[in-house]
Amino acid sequence: MIKIIINRVAEDLKMEKTFIVETSARHVHVNQETLEALFGVGYQLTVKKPLSQPGQYASGEKVEVIGPKKSLTCSILGPCRKDNQVELSFTDARTIGITAPVKESGDIANTPGCILKGPAGEVELKNGVIIAKRHIHMTPEDAITFGVKDKEIVSVKVTGTGRDVIYGDTVVRVNKSYALAMHVDTDESNAGAFGGEVLGTIVK
Amino acid sequence: MIKIIINRVAEDLKMEKTFIVETSARHVHVNQETLEALFGVGYQLTVKKPLSQPGQYASGEKVEVIGPKKSLTCSILGPCRKDNQVELSFTDARTIGITAPVKESGDIANTPGCILKGPAGEVELKNGVIIAKRHIHMTPEDAITFGVKDKEIVSVKVTGTGRDVIYGDTVVRVNKSYALAMHVDTDESNAGAFGGEVLGTIVK
Repeated sequence: MIKIIINRVAEDLKMEKTFIVETSARHVHVNQETLEALFGVGYQLTVKKPLSQPGQYASGEKVEVIGPKKSLTCSILGPCRKDNQVELSFTDARTIGITAPVKESGDIANTPGCILKGPAGEVELKNGVIIAKRHIHMTPEDAITFGVKDKEIVSVKVTGTGRDVIYGDTVVRVNKSYALAMHVDTDESNAGAFGGEVLGTIVK
Repeated sequence: MIKIIINRVAEDLKMEKTFIVETSARHVHVNQETLEALFGVGYQLTVKKPLSQPGQYASGEKVEVIGPKKSLTCSILGPCRKDNQVELSFTDARTIGITAPVKESGDIANTPGCILKGPAGEVELKNGVIIAKRHIHMTPEDAITFGVKDKEIVSVKVTGTGRDVIYGDTVVRVNKSYALAMHVDTDESNAGAFGGEVLGTIVK
C-alpha cells in the first residue's frame, strides 16, 4: 500500500515535469581491496540506509580523508565499486587543502589523490578526489517524459526556498537502473537554501 | 594613470550592464566595546587590505567564533560598527552547530548568538549571527544604468565558470557611498565555481 502511494507521488511529479533534488554530502566509494586495507581482511560494508538509486546505500563505515592541510570524516557509500573515489564540495576540498576539479562520477583521470585512514590502516590514493558535477539520474522512460537525452547539459530551476536558483551545467544521466533524482553537493544545496523536500524543473 | 585605467574598466563593465561578483568569506563586524573586550582597552583595528566598498577594510585581527559544536576562526572587517554581526555561510554555521537565517546585513533581530573569543577575553553575543542575503551594492547612478531600484529583488546570471548559475533572491542596495559590486558567500561562490574575476548580469 505504501509502495503504491510512493509510486503515485513519483508519477505525479513526473506529470508535472518535476523531480526531487537531493543533497549529497561528502562521501567515499572504495573497492574491496581498499576496504580491507582500511577495516581488515575480509571486511564487508554494513548497510545503514538505502539511497534513492536502487542498490546503493549509506554504509555504517566512516573514514578520515586526509589532505595536506587537514582531514575530514566521510561516510563510505556502498556497495564496493571498481575504483576508489572521494566526492567533496569545494568547501571541503579547500578545508583539507586539495584543489580538485568538477568531474562526473567515474571520471577520475587527472584528479588529485589523498590519504584514507580507517581503523585497520591507511591507503594512499594516487587520484580519485573530485567535486561531483551536478546531475540528474533518470530512466530511458523518464528521458522521454522530460524530452532530454543521456549526457545532455540542462539547467534546473528550484524556487520557493528564499534563495531561488537556476543551476546550469547539469548533466543528464540515463540508465534503466536509475531512479529519477537530481544530485547536488552541499555547497550547491546551501547556495539554494535547500531543506526538506526540494523539487527541480528543467528550464531550456 | 592606473586609477584612470581602473575607472575606465569599471565604466566599460557598466556599459555592458555587467558587474564584478565578489566572494565574502565568513567574517565578523564588531563595535568598539566588543573590540576592547576581545583585544584590550583602547585597542584599534589595523588595516590589512581595503575592500571594494569605500572605507571598508579587512583588518589584521581575527577572532574565534564559538558555537555549541565547534569553533571557526574569522577575520574582523573594519571599521567598527554600531552592532556586532557575524556573517557565516550555511556550511560554516552547520560546522559550529548554529542554525542561522538568511538576512540582510544589519537585520539582526531574531537571529541566534554565539561566543567571540579574542586574545584578551570572550564576549557572548545574544544575537547577530546571519547568513548574508546575496546583494548588489550600487550608487544611485548605477541603479539608473541598470534600471533597478533600492531593495529590488533581482536575478543575477554568471556564466563561463563550468558551473553556470542564475541566482534569484538577490537584493539591490543603493547608496551613494557604495561601489558597484555583488557579494555572495562561499557556498554561493563554490556552487558557481567562481574564481578569478567573475562578472554578473541582471536577468529579469
